[in-house]
Amino acid sequence: MSAAGTQLFDSTLRDGAQGEGISFSLDDKLKIFSALDKFGIDFIEAGNPFSNPRDLDFFKKIRPTYGAKAVAFGSTARKGIPADKDGNLAALIKADTEYVAVFGKAWKMQAEEILGVSAGENLDMIRDSIAYLKSRGRKVIFDAEHYFDGYKDDPDYAEEVLMTAQRAGAEVLALCDTRGGCLPEEISRIVKAAKKRADVRIGIHCHDDGGLAVAGTLAAYRAGADHIQGTFIGIGERCGNANLATVIADLVLKYSDRCIGRAQLTQLTDTARYIAEIANIKLPRTMPFTGSSAFSHKAGMHADGVTKNPVSYEHIPPESVGNERSLPLSEVSGRAAILSELKRFDPTLDKNSPETKAVTARLKTLEQQGLLFEAAQASFDMMVLRELGRFAPHFEIEHYNVISSQGKNGAEKANAVIKVRVGDRYEITADEGEGPVNAIDKALRKALEVFYPVLGKMHLIDYKVRVIGGKDTAAVTRVLIESSDGSDVWTTVGASEDIISASVSALTDSLEYMLLKGNK
Amino acid sequence: MSAAGTQLFDSTLRDGAQGEGISFSLDDKLKIFSALDKFGIDFIEAGNPFSNPRDLDFFKKIRPTYGAKAVAFGSTARKGIPADKDGNLAALIKADTEYVAVFGKAWKMQAEEILGVSAGENLDMIRDSIAYLKSRGRKVIFDAEHYFDGYKDDPDYAEEVLMTAQRAGAEVLALCDTRGGCLPEEISRIVKAAKKRADVRIGIHCHDDGGLAVAGTLAAYRAGADHIQGTFIGIGERCGNANLATVIADLVLKYSDRCIGRAQLTQLTDTARYIAEIANIKLPRTMPFTGSSAFSHKAGMHADGVTKNPVSYEHIPPESVGNERSLPLSEVSGRAAILSELKRFDPTLDKNSPETKAVTARLKTLEQQGLLFEAAQASFDMMVLRELGRFAPHFEIEHYNVISSQGKNGAEKANAVIKVRVGDRYEITADEGEGPVNAIDKALRKALEVFYPVLGKMHLIDYKVRVIGGKDTAAVTRVLIESSDGSDVWTTVGASEDIISASVSALTDSLEYMLLKGNK
Repeated sequence: MSAAGTQLFDSTLRDGAQGEGISFSLDDKLKIFSALDKFGIDFIEAGNPFSNPRDLDFFKKIRPTYGAKAVAFGSTARKGIPADKDGNLAALIKADTEYVAVFGKAWKMQAEEILGVSAGENLDMIRDSIAYLKSRGRKVIFDAEHYFDGYKDDPDYAEEVLMTAQRAGAEVLALCDTRGGCLPEEISRIVKAAKKRADVRIGIHCHDDGGLAVAGTLAAYRAGADHIQGTFIGIGERCGNANLATVIADLVLKYSDRCIGRAQLTQLTDTARYIAEIANIKLPRTMPFTGSSAFSHKAGMHADGVTKNPVSYEHIPPESVGNERSLPLSEVSGRAAILSELKRFDPTLDKNSPETKAVTARLKTLEQQGLLFEAAQASFDMMVLRELGRFAPHFEIEHYNVISSQGKNGAEKANAVIKVRVGDRYEITADEGEGPVNAIDKALRKALEVFYPVLGKMHLIDYKVRVIGGKDTAAVTRVLIESSDGSDVWTTVGASEDIISASVSALTDSLEYMLLKGNK
Repeated sequence: MSAAGTQLFDSTLRDGAQGEGISFSLDDKLKIFSALDKFGIDFIEAGNPFSNPRDLDFFKKIRPTYGAKAVAFGSTARKGIPADKDGNLAALIKADTEYVAVFGKAWKMQAEEILGVSAGENLDMIRDSIAYLKSRGRKVIFDAEHYFDGYKDDPDYAEEVLMTAQRAGAEVLALCDTRGGCLPEEISRIVKAAKKRADVRIGIHCHDDGGLAVAGTLAAYRAGADHIQGTFIGIGERCGNANLATVIADLVLKYSDRCIGRAQLTQLTDTARYIAEIANIKLPRTMPFTGSSAFSHKAGMHADGVTKNPVSYEHIPPESVGNERSLPLSEVSGRAAILSELKRFDPTLDKNSPETKAVTARLKTLEQQGLLFEAAQASFDMMVLRELGRFAPHFEIEHYNVISSQGKNGAEKANAVIKVRVGDRYEITADEGEGPVNAIDKALRKALEVFYPVLGKMHLIDYKVRVIGGKDTAAVTRVLIESSDGSDVWTTVGASEDIISASVSALTDSLEYMLLKGNK
């Protein structure tokens, strides 16, 4: 962070935690804080120590270690309570951070109606709270809640709120579109007006209720805001906050801002995916810059274009944000794309070869059964080898039985018995597991490692289940399994009305893929 | 569609189908076409009959029936082929629609490098193709591919492309930000310039690669574009197209445009969710206007604010777009929110009652085990009743066994045996199913219907599985079950490392909920 440059302020751990379905453990918070710090975020708003007392533990834990500034968040003193007696401000002091963010209402109607205070009392609360925090040695970021809606309703009062905060010693006046419904042109106009009045940094805090959070943030930036708030993957109240990863990429690549260096920007995708993983949410594949489909070219013509010249269908090089190009395979991706894949197996094939037609037809049939190869290259390869008649299975499953049971004490258990054949040798074995899928997974590996010890090197790194097509417990289930042998990572797919059968199918592909790799 | 008003053009079935993971059957396409038509979309781009010959069947099917105009999409004639000999144009004619959309390159570099034609030849191809389609009685929408990037590179050539299309008879000149990387201010400036030259409608077609598709579309609208392209739920190449549902809500509610009437706008959410269901994708819960979290207030203070006055944290009334407010329950939602739920069961409780504290603590423990009650109100209610000591179970599961097996012929089967107790009576029974979860589901219902025939009225309407927490086949699995008795709908949750145990738990809650309902 340069003294003069744009400041980045992430609120994943505070506003992000207010997103529906989001819940962070202390360990999750530490991991995310560390990732944001490593990426280069200047301020990390990490909790509200008054409303969530557990957050105090967190602030204690991180105090000494990081380059980024941890920020404790809370409201101003409440109605009728002197600042030095207010529990909320006391909790902010107790968090013992260099910076605190306090929010106060900038919309007169809201102060009167929701807080039940007069316009003047609201100003007093803001002034006294900031002055008190300053007197206790804190640097204060003032979040002017509802600033834009408040300004549209009563510009003089909204600006008076800002000036009050500035006079009391706030270092940043962050203008919040709390309801997320303002238009970029309104944000631009109102930030410009605030810039004329203020002597300190103007910040921007947008929500995505109109689908315009990134645009509003950039409009504020162009109007002079130099403190940018958001959450790295966009999680937050209702529709979420401005997606900070997207804003950062736009700032650096479109506006040549130096908030993050070009080299560091290549960590953008990994950071976003890591945070999504810790937050236990699936990063939408269409997420700008960081999504798995962000540089995926499906239509035949697009795939053809980027192959000739990437600039034809890519606004930036995927590697500049640490993402990568992909040409997913599906029945609509065109025979040309399928052919280019087939040529890896047989360079003599062309568009009209019977093999190309057979694979295209087979792909279509399997997709209709619920398989999707776009994310499962290894299963695609196995399918092609089977269609080309070049697949010699390393093993056959003769039969299996999985027994899941629960006794009267409520303890469930799962056991699997499996018999496999390799050549003319048989192995029958059993194992138990946490649930039926885990039991059959373990039994199958145990049986095969007798023949193929190399499989011991392989492990599962992700297991995903998606119910598709149907609506009840008999619906088709698609299973994606991601495996690794420590160096390579590959993904396989299975689909069936029976989750065990779907899992065994994806697992079989994965084991065969590993064995084929070994033979190369 | 009024002659003078803003035209809405949806490309879910064409550009949307180019989104990774999207694949439509003929029946899917008919359903989506019908939903878009019913909602009030003016133009529905429904396929590319040249690259996907199956799309011809679709155009044949829909020809007579709808108010919306079906649009067939394709490229101009290709290099060196006269328009009346070009297979692509022939396919467009064969689709037999009143309107066709043809795209041609507006970026000189791309014409030269990707198509391998000179700048002049590119203009000829555009002119001849449009003139030919006009001579065959078609109305033509011209998609100026790469218009904005082309204009930034060579404004004179880009405008010459537009003028060529206009002179040849195009009724709409749709300016495409094909790579999705342009900024709203650039789009505004370039649309204004085009408006000065053109005598026909200017259209806008944005992609979301910079997170700015909605903003770019609205910027074009303000600059004079009156033909708005997008896909209803935002699916499309790479990061997707401008989300038309979001754009429509912004146009109507923020700009008072009349493209859709206020009464009809209340169908927005249902239409978006229906299309997502047919497209078999999960509509992100944070989707502006239409997402399930779009009006969900999780933080205690926000929940408190909207309870006092909805305008405090809602930029529009949720019902104006057919969505609804929710106050999800979780450990961070604050004891006040939990209390307001508890009061449904016992109005005498207050914040400091031991029961309130016990439920709050229990909620926290269960969330850490992988349960999430935010989307499972019925399970929340059962948990509260248990904590309050007011739950008398209607049945106990004594034990169960589920056997999944696969024989040598590859046919899998699943059987379940279950014993339940109701009072001092027992029932032991068995059933088979499509997979182990379906088998135990059927067996449990069969056993219980002996005692409670009312359960015959209840059926599952959705079954969702999510792998959380862990990374392999032993990971914690969370199951959400949505049930209905024809009038009410309720959702329950279960979590366990064992998918069968998680499912039985969610199922048990659902059955108990139905039985409790019956007793009221």
